[in-house]
Amino acid sequence: MTQAERLVRRMLAALLQASADAPGVTRDAYGAGEAAAHAIAAAEARAMGAEVATDAAGNLYMTLAGADRTRPAFLTGSHLDSVPHGGNFDGAAGVVAGLAAMADLRARGVTPPQDLTVVAFRAEEAAWFPLSYPGSLAALGDLPPAALDARRADTGRTLADHMAAAGFDPDAVRRGAAHLVPKRVAAFVEVHIEQGPVLIGRGVPLGIVTAINGGFRHIAARVRGEWAHSGATPFGFRHDAALGVADLMLRLQGWWAEREAAGEALTVTFGCLATDPALHGGSRVAGDVTFALDIRAGTQGTLSRAAQALAALAAEVAAAQGVSIDLGPRFDWDAVVCDPALVRRIAGAATALHLPHISLPSGAGHDAAALAAAGIPSAMIFVRNANGSHNPDEAMDAADLDLAVRLLARLAETPCNLPNNAARPGSDAV
Amino acid sequence: MTQAERLVRRMLAALLQASADAPGVTRDAYGAGEAAAHAIAAAEARAMGAEVATDAAGNLYMTLAGADRTRPAFLTGSHLDSVPHGGNFDGAAGVVAGLAAMADLRARGVTPPQDLTVVAFRAEEAAWFPLSYPGSLAALGDLPPAALDARRADTGRTLADHMAAAGFDPDAVRRGAAHLVPKRVAAFVEVHIEQGPVLIGRGVPLGIVTAINGGFRHIAARVRGEWAHSGATPFGFRHDAALGVADLMLRLQGWWAEREAAGEALTVTFGCLATDPALHGGSRVAGDVTFALDIRAGTQGTLSRAAQALAALAAEVAAAQGVSIDLGPRFDWDAVVCDPALVRRIAGAATALHLPHISLPSGAGHDAAALAAAGIPSAMIFVRNANGSHNPDEAMDAADLDLAVRLLARLAETPCNLPNNAARPGSDAV
Repeated sequence: MTQAERLVRRMLAALLQASADAPGVTRDAYGAGEAAAHAIAAAEARAMGAEVATDAAGNLYMTLAGADRTRPAFLTGSHLDSVPHGGNFDGAAGVVAGLAAMADLRARGVTPPQDLTVVAFRAEEAAWFPLSYPGSLAALGDLPPAALDARRADTGRTLADHMAAAGFDPDAVRRGAAHLVPKRVAAFVEVHIEQGPVLIGRGVPLGIVTAINGGFRHIAARVRGEWAHSGATPFGFRHDAALGVADLMLRLQGWWAEREAAGEALTVTFGCLATDPALHGGSRVAGDVTFALDIRAGTQGTLSRAAQALAALAAEVAAAQGVSIDLGPRFDWDAVVCDPALVRRIAGAATALHLPHISLPSGAGHDAAALAAAGIPSAMIFVRNANGSHNPDEAMDAADLDLAVRLLARLAETPCNLPNNAARPGSDAV
Repeated sequence: MTQAERLVRRMLAALLQASADAPGVTRDAYGAGEAAAHAIAAAEARAMGAEVATDAAGNLYMTLAGADRTRPAFLTGSHLDSVPHGGNFDGAAGVVAGLAAMADLRARGVTPPQDLTVVAFRAEEAAWFPLSYPGSLAALGDLPPAALDARRADTGRTLADHMAAAGFDPDAVRRGAAHLVPKRVAAFVEVHIEQGPVLIGRGVPLGIVTAINGGFRHIAARVRGEWAHSGATPFGFRHDAALGVADLMLRLQGWWAEREAAGEALTVTFGCLATDPALHGGSRVAGDVTFALDIRAGTQGTLSRAAQALAALAAEVAAAQGVSIDLGPRFDWDAVVCDPALVRRIAGAATALHLPHISLPSGAGHDAAALAAAGIPSAMIFVRNANGSHNPDEAMDAADLDLAVRLLARLAETPCNLPNNAARPGSDAV
C-alpha cells in the first residue's frame, strides 16, 4: 500500500472515531465535531512539513510549497463538517484526497511547480446555519455581514458567537477580510462523494462535474379546494386539494420525461406533503394541501422553461380539478458552469491515467460554486458512493477515493495556468 | 305562520342559545350540551300533551297517541348531539321536524291512525365516543357490551360512566334491555340535513334517501420508495413515494370517472396525506408517504369492484413508479338499502303535496342504518343545506325544513302497515 493509500485509510478512521455519534457521525459546524476533524487534518499536514494557516473564519489552509512560489497556487479540498448523524465521507473525502495527493507527491519526491494548497472550509452543511457556503464566502471576503447574525439550528447562537467561541475573528469577517485572493489561485478542484446514484448505476468510479446546477424552490406552496364530507360529496361536486397536488405532480412528471427524452437534464421534486391534522379528519375531502417543489438544472434556459411549464400546468390543474394553486415565495439560486478548460484538463489527465470516468452535473450545491462565482477556475471530481449522502449509510469505497487521489496528484504536479476571471463583479479584485 | 312553522323557528333558536360555543354549537354526547337539547325537546313535547319517556341509555321518546294504540308506531326523529363547534342542524333538524309534524297534526285536529313517536337518540357523533350509533343500538338492545367501555375523546371517561353520571342505567344497557321492539315499529323515517352539495347543486329542497352507503377505509396506508437528494437523483433513478401516491390517486380518479359515466354511484377519497417532517428535509425525494383512502357505495357489488380496481391500480403504480404500496388494515361497513316500499310511499306523498324532490344515496352513516339492520322498515328525508356539516357554517333554510315537516305529517296521518323484517338475525324478535 502506498503512503497516499495509507493516509486515506488512517485519516478516514481517525475522523470516524473522533466524531462517531450513533447512528453515523456528527461534525457540528464551529463545534467540537468540526474542530476535531480540523485538528486531525492539520496534524497530517504538519507531519508532511506543510505550512498550516487559518483565516479569520477558521478555514484551514495546508500548503506544500511549489518550485515557483510566485505562481498562483493549485487549490483543492472541501469541507469537514457533517450533518447531524451523517456519513463519514460528505466533505471529508475531499480534504483527505488533497492531503493524500500531497503525500503522493512527497513519496515520489516531486516538488509541485506551484504551491499545492489543501483547504478545509467551515460550515458547509446548511443543517447548522441556514446559509449557503459561509465558510468559503468568508475565505473570499464575500460573506454578507448579515450572515454573521444567522443562528445555529440547535444552539440558537449566532454564527458570530460560534466563530468567536472557537477562537476566530468574526469582526474581521464582517469587515470582509479575505484570505483567498482569486488572482492568486490558479484553479480549485473539489473532490466530493457523489450524492446521487449515477456513478453506482453506471459502474464508473469517477465523475467530472461540468456544472453545479442552479434552481428554484417553492417551500410553502399550497393547493386550496374545499373541505367536504368524503361520503356525501359525489363526483363532480368536489374541489379536492389532494387531487390538485397529485394532478400537478403527474403533469410535471410527464413534462420532465419529455425534456429528459429531448436530452435536457433537470430534476423536479415535490416534497413536504401535508394536509392539516387538525382538519383532515378520518378521511375528509382535503380542502388544503401544502407542499414543496424544487426544480434544478445546469442552465438558466432550462430553468426558465421549467418555470413556464409549471405556471401553465398549474393553470390547467386549477381548471381541471376546481382548485386554486398558490406556489408562494420562490427562492432562486444560479447555476455555475465549471471552468471548461479546467474540466478538459481533468478529463485529459483521467484519460492519460486510464481512470474510468464520465461527465455529469452536480445537483447539489458545493463550496466550488462560491469560488467559481469569485472568478477562480473551478471544477469538481465526484467519487462513486452508495446510499446518497447526509445519512449514516453513505458508502464510498476507499479504493475509489485512491483513484481520485491519483488524478489530483497528476493535476497538482502539472503547471496550471488557466485564464482567471477574477475581475468579475463581486470578487476581491474588482 | 303555522303552529308547526313557529315551533321550527322557536326550537332551533332555543337549541342555538342553549349550546352556543363560538364558533358554532357544542352539544356533547351525555354532557351538558346534549342534556340541554333533550330538555328543550321534552318541554316542547309536554306542551303538546305528548307522552315523554326515556330508556336506560337516555334516548328520549315523545309520543302522540294514535287512534289505535295496538298498531305499531310510526317513528321519526334523529339525534341531538353535535360535533364540537359544529352547526345547529346536523341531527337536531330531524327531532325538530318530528315535533313540528306533531304540532301540525294537533293544529289541524288530526288524531294519527297509530302512535306517532319522535325519538331523540343519544351520542350519534363519533367525535365523542369512537362508536357507530351507540344510542340507537342501545335503544334496540343491540349495543355490544364492550362499547360501554369506550372512552369519550375529550374526558377520557367511559360511555358507562357518562351514562351513569347523566342519570341513566348502563347496567341495563349492558344486559341488552330494549326500549324499541322492532315489530312494534311500523316504520322509521329520519329527517336530516344533507351533508353534501347535491340538493343545493340541483336546486331541490328535499331528497329521499334510497340507501345508506357502505364502504371500506384504509386509514394507515403507505407508499414506500427511497429517500434521495432532490438535486443529485436524476430521472429514472428515483423511487418517489410522493409520485407513487399521486399516481394512485389519479388512476383511481380515472377509474371512478369511468364508473360514474357508467351510472354506478360511489365516492373515492384520499385524505390525511403526510411525509415525515423529521425526514422530508427542504425538498428531498420522498421515501415514505402516508395517506388514508375511503371508498363508499350503495351496493356490495360496487364496493367489491372498487377493491379489485384498487388492488390492480396499486400494482400498476408500484411497477410504474418503482415503489411499494401497503394499504394497511381495512375497515368495512355494510351498505343499508332503505325499505323500497317506504321509499315509494315517501316519494308518493311528496308528489301528492307537490314538493320538489329527488332520490339520492346517503354517503354518511345515520341511526337509520341501525334501525334498518334490526328489521324496521326505514328511510330518510334529506333537507337541502349549504356548506356541508360538522362545521359552524351549516346553512339550512327553515323554509326547507317546513317542507319536510309537511311531508312527515302527511306520512304520519296515513295508516302505515309495511312488511316488517324484524325476524332478521340480530333483532329483538329472533
